[in-house]
Amino acid sequence: MRTIEEMKSIIRAGLKKEPCSLALCKVKLVNVFSREVYTTDIYIKDKYIVSICPGANLHCDTRVDCSGYYALPGFIDSHMHFESTMLSPEALSAFIVEKGTTTLCADVMEIANVCGEDGIRCMLECIDRLPYRMLVEVSSRVPTAPGLETNGAVMDETVVARLMREEFSVSLGELDPPKILGEKEEYLKKVVDTLAMRKIVNGHAIGKHGQELNVYASSGISDDHECVEVEEMEDRLRLGMKVLVREGSTERNLDVLIKGVLDRGLSSENLCFCTDDKHVDEIKSEGHINYNVNRAIELGMSPMDAICMATINTAKHFRLEDEIGSITPGRMADIILCSSLEDIQPHSVYFEGKLVFDAGRSLFSCEQGSYPEWIYDTVHLKNAITADSFRVGHSGSVAKTNVIQLIDRQILSKWVVCDLPVISGAVAGDLARDILKIAVVERYGKNGNVGVGFVQGFTLKRGAVAYSMSHDHHNIVTIGQNDADMALCVNCVAGMRGGLAAVLDGEVLAYMPLPIGGLMSTCSGEEVSQQLDDMNRAAAKLGCTIPAPFMTLSFISLPTVPELGITDMGLIDVENNCIIPLFAE
Amino acid sequence: MRTIEEMKSIIRAGLKKEPCSLALCKVKLVNVFSREVYTTDIYIKDKYIVSICPGANLHCDTRVDCSGYYALPGFIDSHMHFESTMLSPEALSAFIVEKGTTTLCADVMEIANVCGEDGIRCMLECIDRLPYRMLVEVSSRVPTAPGLETNGAVMDETVVARLMREEFSVSLGELDPPKILGEKEEYLKKVVDTLAMRKIVNGHAIGKHGQELNVYASSGISDDHECVEVEEMEDRLRLGMKVLVREGSTERNLDVLIKGVLDRGLSSENLCFCTDDKHVDEIKSEGHINYNVNRAIELGMSPMDAICMATINTAKHFRLEDEIGSITPGRMADIILCSSLEDIQPHSVYFEGKLVFDAGRSLFSCEQGSYPEWIYDTVHLKNAITADSFRVGHSGSVAKTNVIQLIDRQILSKWVVCDLPVISGAVAGDLARDILKIAVVERYGKNGNVGVGFVQGFTLKRGAVAYSMSHDHHNIVTIGQNDADMALCVNCVAGMRGGLAAVLDGEVLAYMPLPIGGLMSTCSGEEVSQQLDDMNRAAAKLGCTIPAPFMTLSFISLPTVPELGITDMGLIDVENNCIIPLFAE
Repeated sequence: MRTIEEMKSIIRAGLKKEPCSLALCKVKLVNVFSREVYTTDIYIKDKYIVSICPGANLHCDTRVDCSGYYALPGFIDSHMHFESTMLSPEALSAFIVEKGTTTLCADVMEIANVCGEDGIRCMLECIDRLPYRMLVEVSSRVPTAPGLETNGAVMDETVVARLMREEFSVSLGELDPPKILGEKEEYLKKVVDTLAMRKIVNGHAIGKHGQELNVYASSGISDDHECVEVEEMEDRLRLGMKVLVREGSTERNLDVLIKGVLDRGLSSENLCFCTDDKHVDEIKSEGHINYNVNRAIELGMSPMDAICMATINTAKHFRLEDEIGSITPGRMADIILCSSLEDIQPHSVYFEGKLVFDAGRSLFSCEQGSYPEWIYDTVHLKNAITADSFRVGHSGSVAKTNVIQLIDRQILSKWVVCDLPVISGAVAGDLARDILKIAVVERYGKNGNVGVGFVQGFTLKRGAVAYSMSHDHHNIVTIGQNDADMALCVNCVAGMRGGLAAVLDGEVLAYMPLPIGGLMSTCSGEEVSQQLDDMNRAAAKLGCTIPAPFMTLSFISLPTVPELGITDMGLIDVENNCIIPLFAE
Repeated sequence: MRTIEEMKSIIRAGLKKEPCSLALCKVKLVNVFSREVYTTDIYIKDKYIVSICPGANLHCDTRVDCSGYYALPGFIDSHMHFESTMLSPEALSAFIVEKGTTTLCADVMEIANVCGEDGIRCMLECIDRLPYRMLVEVSSRVPTAPGLETNGAVMDETVVARLMREEFSVSLGELDPPKILGEKEEYLKKVVDTLAMRKIVNGHAIGKHGQELNVYASSGISDDHECVEVEEMEDRLRLGMKVLVREGSTERNLDVLIKGVLDRGLSSENLCFCTDDKHVDEIKSEGHINYNVNRAIELGMSPMDAICMATINTAKHFRLEDEIGSITPGRMADIILCSSLEDIQPHSVYFEGKLVFDAGRSLFSCEQGSYPEWIYDTVHLKNAITADSFRVGHSGSVAKTNVIQLIDRQILSKWVVCDLPVISGAVAGDLARDILKIAVVERYGKNGNVGVGFVQGFTLKRGAVAYSMSHDHHNIVTIGQNDADMALCVNCVAGMRGGLAAVLDGEVLAYMPLPIGGLMSTCSGEEVSQQLDDMNRAAAKLGCTIPAPFMTLSFISLPTVPELGITDMGLIDVENNCIIPLFAE
């Protein structure tokens, strides 16, 4: 939000009473308001764009000849849980800025579920040093599934209202349908308070259709990033919801949705782009929002439409079009220079008027901040975890069991019932059918709960893996072929104060510490990327063939995405929002 | 803004746990989000739309078969000074509601310039009884031209900030370029405060181009309703400003701008409609925003684009798309039913779920509220006004005089210098060249100022006219062929505590009281329309041939619209924002 001093300075520079700080001359401006591309000079004063008027000829010492380059607004990710990258906000900068991302609308629900409001504020302490803008979608559901999980913190209406008053807050984060359809007073209040502050409410309408979707929309929900089918997208647009077209690591919806837009001749006016959850290695290799833009163009969308989806559409959606999303006077000088609009490869990136990436080189150092000690100390096991912790006793010879069946490349799961073998009085998985034991171990030192279930489709053949990010409660989730390796895996993760581990036959094959809230590393993006490669290789050594095993692992537990979830309290019937017995008899 | 109880009620109706209050069945829904027209049922609960889901089949006692009818969102006037209609907000309802207007974004600067914050709040006391929604564009300039005029009240930053916090406030009202280009601290603060509250700033960029316009836009101004040329419109759109396409009584910009949009293939996404100033007789005969919509369609714009300009575009612009501007769940049930989209004639109008107009009949009575006594007592002459009050002494035989030259159908004026005759030591007008004396008489009882000048192009041949609404200071403005008739005219207006008068040869030909703040009548719209007809006939009897003589009269004085204005302090050089001598020598 501009100050009067900044405003005066912009005006004075425009009136030639003060010099500008930078001029990008003879650049081909991509104007997302008029939807034109034309050659002009862009004048910048400190953080702000002063003028795009052809022939303005303002005072300026630093003039850059940008002949041959296009200037487009910095990209905006409309919805990302950055904690899923395992990087701190500082470390993340090394990866996303060079891809042209200058604004991240971060749903910070992961750290919030661990450390609540303090966790969010702690993450934002580095905000002024970042070479990109982090805006906060204030988590609506901390915990996500009250009564069905143990998590680290509670953010009630009062906390949410307090956070919503902050300038860094732009919306109420993804509110899921059961809270609305169930008329839960606490969440309705959060919605009303948010709308009263003229901010928006992000949705999470996974699998909702027809009148149920209508009811959900009627409560004031503004968008959805969970569309996987074209018809879902059209349904949501008809109800006045924006669709945030997602392309993340496991959730890849862009091709289907953008092809639908093109085939059906839909307007892209109410569409934005997001990644939701994307691992650092894929951001590194594939890209961030620039990937969404380029892929949409590759599919046949006009560069102007694709760029608008990544910039002004999102800015308008969040009611920030006076600040970001375009290269127009008075807006933040977040600018990408590139030499082609058919395949956008940022040559230079300016953030708030500063050159932060140029010709393949990052021009900032965003050193890891020193966070308070408590954020490194969030993993506490109440009881010792041993192989016995995961034992599921059964008196029969076969156990009719409720099993979580994974769906390829989706966070949705299917609820299937399988007959599982009982060996020595305990239910076992069945490698032949790719059914493994899964467990969620409470890690806040509160009650020592261990929820045990079975999962089909994870492809692991031996040993065990574990991860302290299990959505959204972020207990320690483990999947294994045997209980002893699962126990060692969990103890390894706990010993690191959070992280990933892979174990085979009583030996730790690989581990990766995530000490910041048990979710994020203190290492650089390059290091994390390398460590994650090692972890994935270890998982592969255990026979796991799915593309992003640890991210998949982190989502299996979700108690809010149909059909089955699992928490420290047990199996969750998502549709009916309740704990169900492991056995289907 | 919805309450939790309303929200619950909408949700419960959607879930069939409560009955809806109304269902509009088998209607052709004009969906402004998906840009489709399709048949469905619209369910309403009290003020809100519950469902538009085909086949929802919700519980509802009152079902209306709407086969054959289109349902479109109620129209929004994005910018209107309703005081120019001379009607109270209550009386106005009889005229605009049947035209399909359900929301008025009212820039209340006229009453604010007379009575300040109290005047605004007083106007809004009837708000809950109105069959349309009045939203307030909080006047940024009260007074408009500080130091150059005497007005009734001052609204400084503190007052504006207080008003801006109210739910009824949606923006900072039309801020004119000199305040920005002159870096006036007070106004910059008003802009910053408004943006900080996530509301927008309306512009008033009359005649501004190139780098000056750029500087103006750089301060955070969001729109302009003063475009008269296509190039101006394109310039503004390029700078990220919305263009409010105006069609009022004297300012008729729609044809030029919409033809430009069509000829040049421009997107209408960033365009809205407004009337700015429109007299009651023209609203009655021609229409309100429905006229803009129909005229645009007549010119070749698609009905969907034209309807969006009058509904969702405006709602989005004011960041109210979660409340108004579309027929989607959770929004206010403001609905027009009509039988054609080629020529939109509202058959029925629903406001907040209530049928307020149907088959040619208004179904509400919006009786005149009783305002406090002080608002009827705002006209006070400090000194007696006689013919001598207007005498301009001169020692020569010819006076080289600065004259305001009117431009046909524009509020812009030209500054010309004319040699005027001096008769008996006083400068006189010259009927042969259509030059008449104009005077502005201070009417707040503060200093008794009388500003005297000359105007060319008003076409009056004899007698005098006067009006207590002279923009924006709202002193009494008079034009006459002789000083005695001018004095009688002013005294007649003052005697009525405000209004219009026409005088010929010492006799009052016609008068019309406007006792509410000296701006508005206490009569019904029909009566005001009749009285205004009488006044226009009286002006015609005085030889005046311009179409809306009293509205023209009210704008001549404007000290903020180039090139010349006149206030109680004298002639105003608008460009240089200063008082200039009457004589050009």
